Amino acid sequence: MHRSPLPRLLSHRLFHLSPSRNVSTSTPPSVIFSGIQPTGIPHLGNYYGALRAWVDLQTTTPTSTSLIFSVVDLHAITIPQPPGALQIARTEMLKALLALGLCPDRCTIFEQGAVSAHSELMWILSTITRVGWLERMTQWKAKTGQEGGKGVVPLGAGDKKGGEERERAGLLCYPVLQAADILVHRATEVPVGEDQSQHLEFTRQCARAFNAQYGKEVFVEPQTILSPAKRVMSLRQPGKKMSKSDPDPRSRILLTDTPDVIAKRIRKSVTDSTTGITYDPELRPGLANLIEIYCHATRRSDYETTAEEFDKKGMTMSDVKQSVTEAVVEDLRPFRERWSDLEKAGETWLAEVRKKGNDKARESAERTLRDVKDVVGLA
Amino acid sequence: MHRSPLPRLLSHRLFHLSPSRNVSTSTPPSVIFSGIQPTGIPHLGNYYGALRAWVDLQTTTPTSTSLIFSVVDLHAITIPQPPGALQIARTEMLKALLALGLCPDRCTIFEQGAVSAHSELMWILSTITRVGWLERMTQWKAKTGQEGGKGVVPLGAGDKKGGEERERAGLLCYPVLQAADILVHRATEVPVGEDQSQHLEFTRQCARAFNAQYGKEVFVEPQTILSPAKRVMSLRQPGKKMSKSDPDPRSRILLTDTPDVIAKRIRKSVTDSTTGITYDPELRPGLANLIEIYCHATRRSDYETTAEEFDKKGMTMSDVKQSVTEAVVEDLRPFRERWSDLEKAGETWLAEVRKKGNDKARESAERTLRDVKDVVGLA
Repeated sequence: MHRSPLPRLLSHRLFHLSPSRNVSTSTPPSVIFSGIQPTGIPHLGNYYGALRAWVDLQTTTPTSTSLIFSVVDLHAITIPQPPGALQIARTEMLKALLALGLCPDRCTIFEQGAVSAHSELMWILSTITRVGWLERMTQWKAKTGQEGGKGVVPLGAGDKKGGEERERAGLLCYPVLQAADILVHRATEVPVGEDQSQHLEFTRQCARAFNAQYGKEVFVEPQTILSPAKRVMSLRQPGKKMSKSDPDPRSRILLTDTPDVIAKRIRKSVTDSTTGITYDPELRPGLANLIEIYCHATRRSDYETTAEEFDKKGMTMSDVKQSVTEAVVEDLRPFRERWSDLEKAGETWLAEVRKKGNDKARESAERTLRDVKDVVGLA
Repeated sequence: MHRSPLPRLLSHRLFHLSPSRNVSTSTPPSVIFSGIQPTGIPHLGNYYGALRAWVDLQTTTPTSTSLIFSVVDLHAITIPQPPGALQIARTEMLKALLALGLCPDRCTIFEQGAVSAHSELMWILSTITRVGWLERMTQWKAKTGQEGGKGVVPLGAGDKKGGEERERAGLLCYPVLQAADILVHRATEVPVGEDQSQHLEFTRQCARAFNAQYGKEVFVEPQTILSPAKRVMSLRQPGKKMSKSDPDPRSRILLTDTPDVIAKRIRKSVTDSTTGITYDPELRPGLANLIEIYCHATRRSDYETTAEEFDKKGMTMSDVKQSVTEAVVEDLRPFRERWSDLEKAGETWLAEVRKKGNDKARESAERTLRDVKDVVGLA
């Protein structure tokens, strides 16, 4: 199972980890799990919203804490993908995670579709899950155009030809696969945004229902690590979140963008012509977004104070854009260096890291699945 | 991967196969797939309704035809199982299949839960399947108490606390797993009863929808082999099918029952006191059931003629019961002999056969799954 060591020099250069604290406790070691969809090269929103927190966990948690990060390609296909696109997007995301500084020795970095136990547990959990639980999920309602809570159109009722096309079983059962992702690694903590906290509650419900049905404490109920929302908005329409699916590439900054492109995107970003620099997300959303990006890049959280400092220095909108550009370019420097290293390291190295991560994840997942099958009577 | 050969003498004694015809054709070789739930020792209804036809296929198909038979334990858990029961029931069913004369060299006999590709393909197909297709399945409506076709209560509507408990996602998605079972082995033919023909049509719909979405002919559309219904009714209530779940054990004959028990069950079976022997399923269902069982056991299909022959000989009801007993005892003789051989062969031999079957099935399923993952972009 064990792979040959990573090329030494490369691995040294790629992953600079501060020594982790090694805390000995009597409670079982923590397992932190999180996943990201394979959307290709991540943008600033992915980075500040989720991925940077993953990297930080490598130095802020004791080495006894398992860190398991998944590129959730099986979730991606709940929305039809153009043929060929997914394969490329998966590789880009994996490469980006490594370039961000996730260390394949410290973490388990893997692709969901490569670990069959995720799908296997998904099926087993689906025999526990009530359809009603799934229909009450906000994301299901939203994605099938049933928004509006109470006045929901029941499935199967009325004319819904347009809706039926979107009502794929995979979309309805998405939370069951997500629960399997988490439970199969016996994760104790899951960092999620607020939009996912309903799914985490659903995961706990699955764990409880399974344990109750089979009369054994097979699953751990995972805790939510709710991180303060770090949303990055579109540079063209600051009322919308920065998104890979926005047809206008000027709306986003990709982590692989050159300093020149970053400068251009920020310079051309939509702001306003009001005099003075203030932090006002309601009235000046474009500027507020830039100030937030600046704070994320410089690891500050005091948006108002930052705006006041800018204003006191007599900075113009153009000056602010210049400062934001510098901060972002600087913050992404290590990423750019590692990305270029990875390009040089070539496909073989990436394939090795991929295999190593998938093997590690398989080991972790199979361990739980064996216990599950044993209890269910499938072993 | 290859296992050591089965104990020679034993294997010789267990499986007497007539030489198969070896027909060379230009079309791709046939693959016949079928599955049975692990309900423990099969009863006469399982045997004449399905399993004997599996055994017959070994001699009636050319050796180029793959025969793949599955103990579908993942389907079994869509209805909650008492802990411990499933493990025993799986082993009993597997042993019974071997004792019936299924040859592990000629067929692939395996347990669904041991082959992860079934669950993996199930998830992938669920992203293709519309929820509406599943809600229209007769079995879903029946099992959730929504019988009555048109006037169906839409999910999520009204008071349905009792119903919700039964409405498990696994039960709703059951046909998707069944489609995966068939498609993952690229089955060309599936022998099913009439109650399953809707699920077969659903399987073809999944195959077409997948091929269309990804623009490649990955899946074969399987054909249905509709066998003439050979239903065996309860010996106590001949209006109901013989069933493992009937609380009265006198209602059924298990394949492992001794000749004495078989005689007793048939002697005590519910018939009528009308004079003469006639075949009349409406008015004399108990007698009709016995005549049918006699015909199944002696491989006849002319129920009326059989009844007339009995009547001409001046046979009483008691005489008929005696004849039926003799026919069934004789028909099950090879099973009893092989079952006793298997008892002697012990657990190790069974474990070898089990592993061999699961490995063979894994190979067949992984081949398809690789193609699927390739097309979807998950490879």
